[in-house]
Amino acid sequence: MTETLDQLLNGIRSGDRATLGRAITLIESTRVADRGLAIDLIEACADPDRRTLRIGITGIPGVGKSTFIDPLGMALIDQGHRVAVLAVDPSSERSGGSILGDKTRMERLSQHPNAFIRPSATGGVLGGVAQRTREAIVLCEAAGYDRVLIETVGTGQNELMVDRMTDLNVLLMMAGAGDELQGIKRGIMESADLVAVNKADGEGLAHAEHAANDLRHAIALLPRRDSGRSAEVLLTSGLSGQGIPALIEHLERIEQEDRASGRLERRRNTQLTLWMHQAAREAVLERLQTDPNVLRASNELERSVSKGSISPLKAAERIADLFRTGDAPLP
Amino acid sequence: MTETLDQLLNGIRSGDRATLGRAITLIESTRVADRGLAIDLIEACADPDRRTLRIGITGIPGVGKSTFIDPLGMALIDQGHRVAVLAVDPSSERSGGSILGDKTRMERLSQHPNAFIRPSATGGVLGGVAQRTREAIVLCEAAGYDRVLIETVGTGQNELMVDRMTDLNVLLMMAGAGDELQGIKRGIMESADLVAVNKADGEGLAHAEHAANDLRHAIALLPRRDSGRSAEVLLTSGLSGQGIPALIEHLERIEQEDRASGRLERRRNTQLTLWMHQAAREAVLERLQTDPNVLRASNELERSVSKGSISPLKAAERIADLFRTGDAPLP
Repeated sequence: MTETLDQLLNGIRSGDRATLGRAITLIESTRVADRGLAIDLIEACADPDRRTLRIGITGIPGVGKSTFIDPLGMALIDQGHRVAVLAVDPSSERSGGSILGDKTRMERLSQHPNAFIRPSATGGVLGGVAQRTREAIVLCEAAGYDRVLIETVGTGQNELMVDRMTDLNVLLMMAGAGDELQGIKRGIMESADLVAVNKADGEGLAHAEHAANDLRHAIALLPRRDSGRSAEVLLTSGLSGQGIPALIEHLERIEQEDRASGRLERRRNTQLTLWMHQAAREAVLERLQTDPNVLRASNELERSVSKGSISPLKAAERIADLFRTGDAPLP
Repeated sequence: MTETLDQLLNGIRSGDRATLGRAITLIESTRVADRGLAIDLIEACADPDRRTLRIGITGIPGVGKSTFIDPLGMALIDQGHRVAVLAVDPSSERSGGSILGDKTRMERLSQHPNAFIRPSATGGVLGGVAQRTREAIVLCEAAGYDRVLIETVGTGQNELMVDRMTDLNVLLMMAGAGDELQGIKRGIMESADLVAVNKADGEGLAHAEHAANDLRHAIALLPRRDSGRSAEVLLTSGLSGQGIPALIEHLERIEQEDRASGRLERRRNTQLTLWMHQAAREAVLERLQTDPNVLRASNELERSVSKGSISPLKAAERIADLFRTGDAPLP
């Protein structure tokens, strides 16, 4: 990265997509040397008074997330918004790339000048994919994208992660294939403000209506969410775009409610402190990974663990103590 | 926990299931005071010369994991083995409980004296569910369970986690519903030694055969795994038990190959050092969470972050430095 903080900031603020792309690459960098600039950039981009909306879009593979986001994003753009789509896919940490945010399935959105689509970060630092996405949100907003869609594969863990960086969440479902079971799993429903039964088109419509009814009954049995609302269930078709305008109306109503009640602001404040604690853990682990005393002791301890002369847990305690106090590595 | 290390050890070694259950509860405890005894117990239970096999069973919700494990476990018991079933479900960290390991779907196994079924740990410490399961494996093996099945919901992340504690892995799939797409996602296939297309019964048989063929073609296109093997694709029915004996034969062949080549031993050694490093991170984060200086500074920093007078990332750096060097919390 040869650009200075000011160059990056100016590029982002003027809405230059290439600069925004490079800036996100910078925050995703695993080079320790890049981190200082990244932190300064994120701090400079943050603005708590900026009026934006962060919307989580989750659902199992095959439910049609990308196809759904295309008409949703286009409808938001038609209303005068600028739309960023970020994907969070921690499973990509292994394969080194994500299938999410598939631009070919966001045909119109991916070509629109008021849209910015970024596939999932590829991890690197410990548990870092979600953190990197959270940081990318701030950069996108500084670049003028006032609607940020965070796409993730619903797994239970991922919803929780996304819930910590969004203002509200849409859970995509479809009829059949055991989805109902996964949908009413409590952890997942807890973070959904709206449930969209997708693929409600053609021959799938009747199935979708049936599934939607089942879901409404199931949701009625769940405890109320902390917002006091229960998730509403809508029918949508990413393919035809049907149901998308109604969904946007619902989202706007929830946004207005949450702004008026102060819930949105409280939620963002809570998220900031969670972010701080998560970032602190990450910062500590980065220091652990680069600690010269720990590095020196690790090889020896790995050998002892392999030979069975010390248990992994005892060796771990040694490392932790060594990191903390700078003690000699082995007795 | 009022039992001593010796009492727990004796109970476990004599195969007392109630003691084993209490011991696993001890290692899942989030009380700092319990951790020392837990570490001693795990260390005392570990025995690298014990001949056991750890088998991962993964697949998306609805694929029939529990129904599949019932006949698999029974067949292993018929061969003279003792079978433990542990579930890993990190998503249960939020909801405080897991739907995995549903004993009602393991009707015969759950009642058999040579089987031990334990649902997923409920988390607690940071990123700890997988660690707790890894530790529970050691206790189960010390109690004489020589076949340990680790069940998880396949998400990409979870497979990776399970792959770090198993000797070999079975990926369950079924026809339709976009599974093929998820199945050939590289990260997931990388850890599968065998793919079982489940629900290959009744009207589903033709679909399953079709899906199995598609999968074989897809797998042929993937790079070879580090074992040099490609994952084989079998048809199974958890409901009828069909295909389970063939699956066990395949597992045994892989086990024999990997023992003969030394791959299984190398894999376990690598897992031990990974375990050490993961446990070291956990131990460091535990110390961070209970550090009096950090705790004292956290409230003040949370307020500053909420007010916007410091960014979460800068505050995080402060916490990390404070933890490391014991510096004064605020300038």
